[in-house]
Amino acid sequence: LRFWWVNQNQTYRQEVAGGYLWSPKLRSNGTRNPFYEFMREVSPGDLVLSFADTRLRAFGIARSHAYEAPKPLEFGTVGRNWDAIGWRVDVRYHEIPTVVRPVEWMELLRPLLPARYSPLLPDGRGSQSIYLTELPRPLAFALADLLGPEVAALARSESIAEPELEAQNPELVLWEEHLRQRIESDATLTDTDRQALVLARRGQGLFRQRVQQLESRCRVTGVDRPEHLRASHCKPWRDATHDERLDGENGLLLTPSIDHLFDRGFITFRPDGRLLLSPVAHRPSLHRMGVPVDGDLDVGNFSAGQRRFLEFHRDKVFLQAQARAS
Amino acid sequence: LRFWWVNQNQTYRQEVAGGYLWSPKLRSNGTRNPFYEFMREVSPGDLVLSFADTRLRAFGIARSHAYEAPKPLEFGTVGRNWDAIGWRVDVRYHEIPTVVRPVEWMELLRPLLPARYSPLLPDGRGSQSIYLTELPRPLAFALADLLGPEVAALARSESIAEPELEAQNPELVLWEEHLRQRIESDATLTDTDRQALVLARRGQGLFRQRVQQLESRCRVTGVDRPEHLRASHCKPWRDATHDERLDGENGLLLTPSIDHLFDRGFITFRPDGRLLLSPVAHRPSLHRMGVPVDGDLDVGNFSAGQRRFLEFHRDKVFLQAQARAS
Repeated sequence: LRFWWVNQNQTYRQEVAGGYLWSPKLRSNGTRNPFYEFMREVSPGDLVLSFADTRLRAFGIARSHAYEAPKPLEFGTVGRNWDAIGWRVDVRYHEIPTVVRPVEWMELLRPLLPARYSPLLPDGRGSQSIYLTELPRPLAFALADLLGPEVAALARSESIAEPELEAQNPELVLWEEHLRQRIESDATLTDTDRQALVLARRGQGLFRQRVQQLESRCRVTGVDRPEHLRASHCKPWRDATHDERLDGENGLLLTPSIDHLFDRGFITFRPDGRLLLSPVAHRPSLHRMGVPVDGDLDVGNFSAGQRRFLEFHRDKVFLQAQARAS
Repeated sequence: LRFWWVNQNQTYRQEVAGGYLWSPKLRSNGTRNPFYEFMREVSPGDLVLSFADTRLRAFGIARSHAYEAPKPLEFGTVGRNWDAIGWRVDVRYHEIPTVVRPVEWMELLRPLLPARYSPLLPDGRGSQSIYLTELPRPLAFALADLLGPEVAALARSESIAEPELEAQNPELVLWEEHLRQRIESDATLTDTDRQALVLARRGQGLFRQRVQQLESRCRVTGVDRPEHLRASHCKPWRDATHDERLDGENGLLLTPSIDHLFDRGFITFRPDGRLLLSPVAHRPSLHRMGVPVDGDLDVGNFSAGQRRFLEFHRDKVFLQAQARAS
């Protein structure tokens, strides 16, 4: 259970009504923002405190890990320079009826502010540059106490039971359906291209044939029966150009559970062939799905082309804030 | 490596040109046909001898297990009473230029004919009632010898290397895409229904919510993290009515590899909760995907509704000829 502070000034209404956090992946100038990177470290059950207009206005329980999703339509022109694709976390929010202004409690809070990435300035104003940041436990407990006994108890519970945790992300499915429909109605494509692109989304057809020329077994489980292998994109189908969607070097053959873990960023591979596990991944579950979780797994060499697509995967899909990734 | 004889009189041209075997699942009167049931036992790499018009005309190497697929369009009116959905096996065929008529070799072949499900009558005529039947090894070797040294050598090899084995069945993907398109253009459905039906195909949305009210973990691997579980249909989405596609009792929560094995008929469950492995499943691969392959696994109780949908799965999806299933 971790604690997060989110500055939602511009988009508070939309995010609370829609039940999510959303951030771009990069600043509009193309550089990384640690407060967007933190999105990658949220886990279902984490507690989120919402700050807007100088007040703590809601608390929320994360219902998913971060996943790629388009900028919500309801943002309208707000943030129109952002990348169209960012990180989304599903959240169940509860608005707080009482007025809680941290600026009025700075004697209590000031000693608890972290040295780095603090959500509040020492004078009690919110830090403008922050979207999402982690709260150290003592600060989180102090803020929770201000919000009332329910939130105080919630913050101190071992884990938050949320019966409707659902991290399969219909937003992602609907977005991919939208992309597929666009391909199907694209008159500039031949029937053959259209079919190859649609099949590639499911790891089939021409894309799979090309991957099979380079790969022969699941690099993680060792399964080599073609009937149990999927051609998985390193740069996801949804993010890729048509050419990249069909490029054999953009693929690995993986069993379905490994394909899922890779697609959703719970695992990735270093250029030297080492398997990396995300810090938000639940290791016992990974173990039950056939991932070796004790010690380093060397999955073998990658070609230069594969390494290029894997770099995208580590950068834009893997669930670990890049500042911490080694 | 197993040997199969197929009587393709009516559909020889289409099946050889298209590279497949196809049979209905049931006779037109709704009863089982052992020669259709045999389709469920074919494995990639098996050798198939094609018989049509009193001649052995081609041999083929199976490239897939059996999978559900619609009756090929190119059959036209042939077999128009058949179920629209049958079993399909992908096959790479090689036509035989020499004329080989088994009837001319009955002195050699007659003692090798099996007592049951024999492809030839003792007088050398083909048995009209047969579609697919298994050849005992001595008979298969004798027939292969008649077809020439290449086939003779092939039949005696330990396993047949077929670089393009591809058992992910684009036919199935395209068929599901077709069904989805029909749903999306069905003006009798509301937008909400349409979205629920499309999401259900990926184990998401309303269907998943309903399954989650009944199931909490993968019955095979024990994984209980919702982010790693799919809502899998017992009666497949592609075979189901709209109501059945959204019925919670038609679903199990399974990790992606188990979902795949279940969807493709490599595993199923008995009404008493015992896990069954298909005889055509490759046990070491199943083990690597987290399936316990030694001894019986009891996966717990099923409701009456779940048992009804599981019966469909054992009957129409599981890859084991029903005569042999206990």
